[in-house]
Amino acid sequence: MSQPHKQTCPVAASLNIMGDSWTLLIVREAFNGATRFTEFQSQTGIAKNLLASRLTTMINAGLLEKQDIGTHGARHAYQLTEKGRALAPIMVALSQWGNEWVYGKGKEPVNFVDRLSDEPIAPLAPTRADGKPLAWKNVMMTVGPGANDAMRKQFEQIAQKTSPDNP
Amino acid sequence: MSQPHKQTCPVAASLNIMGDSWTLLIVREAFNGATRFTEFQSQTGIAKNLLASRLTTMINAGLLEKQDIGTHGARHAYQLTEKGRALAPIMVALSQWGNEWVYGKGKEPVNFVDRLSDEPIAPLAPTRADGKPLAWKNVMMTVGPGANDAMRKQFEQIAQKTSPDNP
Repeated sequence: MSQPHKQTCPVAASLNIMGDSWTLLIVREAFNGATRFTEFQSQTGIAKNLLASRLTTMINAGLLEKQDIGTHGARHAYQLTEKGRALAPIMVALSQWGNEWVYGKGKEPVNFVDRLSDEPIAPLAPTRADGKPLAWKNVMMTVGPGANDAMRKQFEQIAQKTSPDNP
Repeated sequence: MSQPHKQTCPVAASLNIMGDSWTLLIVREAFNGATRFTEFQSQTGIAKNLLASRLTTMINAGLLEKQDIGTHGARHAYQLTEKGRALAPIMVALSQWGNEWVYGKGKEPVNFVDRLSDEPIAPLAPTRADGKPLAWKNVMMTVGPGANDAMRKQFEQIAQKTSPDNP
């Protein structure tokens, strides 16, 4: 990847860890049950040297654990950690968007389904903290407790710009 | 970005359109109300030449619309299309993961909140098509109607590998 983003922002921070788009394809295969170097390689089409480098980066970022499963000589398995499994909503969101806006209804190459019924799951939708449904148009970004001065200032400017008092 | 991914897969297809991680930061600012070149530039920290190229790519991909708002000379505004606004779940998923796994509780730089109550929204969670909640461990990937032969074969191999009949 190019230079990491320096902003104090959870979107930028996640994108820095994703590194490049290969990372999420490796995560996709890990979700799909792949554990071995050769499985990741054949199922994503990534070059071997890139895969080796991405796996190391992902282990260092805490997304994957490497286990020695060799009885005679070195054999390794790569498994998602809890932090890695927590990427599920990102994967599902990317997949649902691609299905809807790139392939279209009835042409989905891959679906995320309920394991028990085999039915596609519903589009990810926001809910309030109390579990009540919420429309996307009522979801907005706001400063959190960990915002730095630059971010606070930026959100103040946005609030001013969108204020009803502003002609 | 490097070479686009060639697989028939909605995750790969979305990642191809995201291009690189700047794209999603531009989308973030557009969600946040930015419409002008200078706003995108100052609020993401992207270089001007990169921003110009990303905006063009995003217009060509149908994520943004460019409007001429100049009364004397050229002035442009960039607005998310419906396809661009549909990226909201991806942005929220990235943000919630970054907040939880990079910054941690109480240190969130930015939150997605309910516009009416200003309360942070709940973590995106899967539901069945009928709206019933579903645990992430019961969400799995499966071939869809638009899968090609390579993808069908791969999913058959996965099913075989994870079958209870497989010693």
